[in-house]
Amino acid sequence: MASLANTPPLTRSSVINAHGLIKPYIHTTPVQTNATLSTLASTPQSADALKGTEWESQQPAKPNIKLFFKCENFQRIGAFKVRGAFHAVKRLIEEQGIEETRRRGVVTHSSGNHAQALALAAKTFSIPAHIVMPSISTPSKIEGTRAQGATIHFSGSTSQEREAVVADVIKQTGATLVPPYNHPDIMLGQGTMALELVQQAEELIGKDGKLSVHADGKGLDAVIVPCGGGGMLSGNAIALHGTGIKVFGAEPSFQGGDDARRGVEAGQRIESVKTLTIADGLRTPLGDYTWRIISDRAHVTGLYAVTEENIKDAMRLVLERMKCFVEPSAVVGLATILYNEDFRSMVENEAGEEGWNIGVVFSGGNTTIEAITKIFAPVQDKRAERQEGVLGMDGRKEAENLAG
Amino acid sequence: MASLANTPPLTRSSVINAHGLIKPYIHTTPVQTNATLSTLASTPQSADALKGTEWESQQPAKPNIKLFFKCENFQRIGAFKVRGAFHAVKRLIEEQGIEETRRRGVVTHSSGNHAQALALAAKTFSIPAHIVMPSISTPSKIEGTRAQGATIHFSGSTSQEREAVVADVIKQTGATLVPPYNHPDIMLGQGTMALELVQQAEELIGKDGKLSVHADGKGLDAVIVPCGGGGMLSGNAIALHGTGIKVFGAEPSFQGGDDARRGVEAGQRIESVKTLTIADGLRTPLGDYTWRIISDRAHVTGLYAVTEENIKDAMRLVLERMKCFVEPSAVVGLATILYNEDFRSMVENEAGEEGWNIGVVFSGGNTTIEAITKIFAPVQDKRAERQEGVLGMDGRKEAENLAG
Repeated sequence: MASLANTPPLTRSSVINAHGLIKPYIHTTPVQTNATLSTLASTPQSADALKGTEWESQQPAKPNIKLFFKCENFQRIGAFKVRGAFHAVKRLIEEQGIEETRRRGVVTHSSGNHAQALALAAKTFSIPAHIVMPSISTPSKIEGTRAQGATIHFSGSTSQEREAVVADVIKQTGATLVPPYNHPDIMLGQGTMALELVQQAEELIGKDGKLSVHADGKGLDAVIVPCGGGGMLSGNAIALHGTGIKVFGAEPSFQGGDDARRGVEAGQRIESVKTLTIADGLRTPLGDYTWRIISDRAHVTGLYAVTEENIKDAMRLVLERMKCFVEPSAVVGLATILYNEDFRSMVENEAGEEGWNIGVVFSGGNTTIEAITKIFAPVQDKRAERQEGVLGMDGRKEAENLAG
Repeated sequence: MASLANTPPLTRSSVINAHGLIKPYIHTTPVQTNATLSTLASTPQSADALKGTEWESQQPAKPNIKLFFKCENFQRIGAFKVRGAFHAVKRLIEEQGIEETRRRGVVTHSSGNHAQALALAAKTFSIPAHIVMPSISTPSKIEGTRAQGATIHFSGSTSQEREAVVADVIKQTGATLVPPYNHPDIMLGQGTMALELVQQAEELIGKDGKLSVHADGKGLDAVIVPCGGGGMLSGNAIALHGTGIKVFGAEPSFQGGDDARRGVEAGQRIESVKTLTIADGLRTPLGDYTWRIISDRAHVTGLYAVTEENIKDAMRLVLERMKCFVEPSAVVGLATILYNEDFRSMVENEAGEEGWNIGVVFSGGNTTIEAITKIFAPVQDKRAERQEGVLGMDGRKEAENLAG
């Protein structure tokens, strides 16, 4: 990794520079709108839907919202992670020179998207990539990473075991560690999506004013971003700092997965999280770099959490209504907008009748039919019940049925 | 329906006129490319994959193919059917005048996409729509159609029972029948997608020449379209007639679902089909109008069939790799390109080393997580086996793993 003394400052202009560096290597993923989902977001939840939640006795909020989805599930390797990986590798080349970087190589420990992203970025510049993976990783993930030309090193499953193997690789090869999120170069790289999102939303509104809540054709008012280790959320917040566009973070609440929200509330970073939320990309705690940005109100206006049921319901809508294949982690922002009454009443209060245009980051689409089957299996009976009872629908259900 | 004596001739210029009529009411759906799938299409199948098929002892074909996907799953109501429905309704208004059309209304029998499409088109012009549905239809389909403002009339499940209710509605209201596929106005309406697809593929190639097999930036060589009742296939064939772009049809072979292919081979239309193929939009036989176009070699160059396993494999790739949510019927064209050796060797022979740019129509995305779970449930063990054995992959598996 480019040494920390030399990393660019965590500013919007550093994100703009990062975008210039990585643009030739990444997709400018599309921004999509969806009338059904915007209508749903602007329809109050039924009193029934709030039963058993902390908002049970509350009047359901009635925010006015138009949604703009940044589809990083269509990104190379199926997730946003290539942005940070390409930026880290490009910066490393700038600092060490290409020959030295090729001689030393890069290393990371990950069994997920960051491993494939780093392998792809390294391969692009003929740099050796070493990926440390638990030996129990699924064969398809191992093969996916190997197919990008990386050398796989197997380790045990604990973080100590993984770090021991990483240290070993570094000792033997001199490879530079490229961590998955807790590094300025990674954060700045992930933030590049915000630059595209804002511009693409403006272009869409320019073509069709009805997509916007604002009569004057103004663009986004806010962006909501999933938060795990916080690389993507902090990057977006840095990219939009000073633009007047608010940035919010969204997390799963299951088994304490909302560590960023809880940490900010308590004024202290939570350093360890053990959650098995279905949003498996968001099981990680914040790092110290990402914490500094995310705990700063001037960067991240608020953090919200959603339940596993909220995530499943949002995921069903995105698949079945938007026809867009996403992983559970990708929809926690949308789930917050649709189901979290704290967020919804905040929008109603802040935005008033005019409403907000909100950019929603779909972070990735790396899941499988088998994983989806497993996630939705236990609720099938409940779903059947709901379908039987559909004739007595409330306003939201009607909105859901109003396709097109 | 506009009376048949007055329907426009089945020519490309009639499709162009139809496009002008419906364009304000439909989405210009995106055309997407995908490097992984184009690579896969251009990689020979393994000898193993051909075991137990009719091509077992044959040398696997090695065509060169670039794919351009017309994503009608992103169309209004989630399927191409709105094209024909809006065209039929607009033509009816042209012929009868809006007042008379509003007085009489329109009627059809369908529990699927055509019902919702007609209901939406009618609602747009404040025309009453009567939809005859079997009383056993799923509540969500009934509600989806009702939410478009249509009046639902329930019938029994046999075609006689349905037609009796339709006759009754016509007698009581004077409503005009708008059939789902076997009518020139419907065929011409569906054909409009081909005009967009050809132009969008050319624009994409103009921006990035690497998307094309042709060094000179030439556009599509062929289009492949799913075939059930044949409205979409015949419409595409009419739209592209005389352009030099070849049109192919794709069907499921399960339980004789490839009635168009078999009929053309025998020189006679097959009038009845009973198949429970997972491609449930393609269970219908051709009508006499669609047959006339589809059985004409000058319009449709060839028809190909694929197995249920082929459809599932293609669907998995589209979901997991393209991140695009489609229904099984939508992928029979892609399944043909990837797995039908007759088609693949035909392309190899016709196109030579240079290869073909092929447009692939994804007809719709109206399925549910539950339906997908059911379709893929029985093969889960097999998939696990395949994953275990993935370390000894063939070239195709490697291509599959090379995301990006």
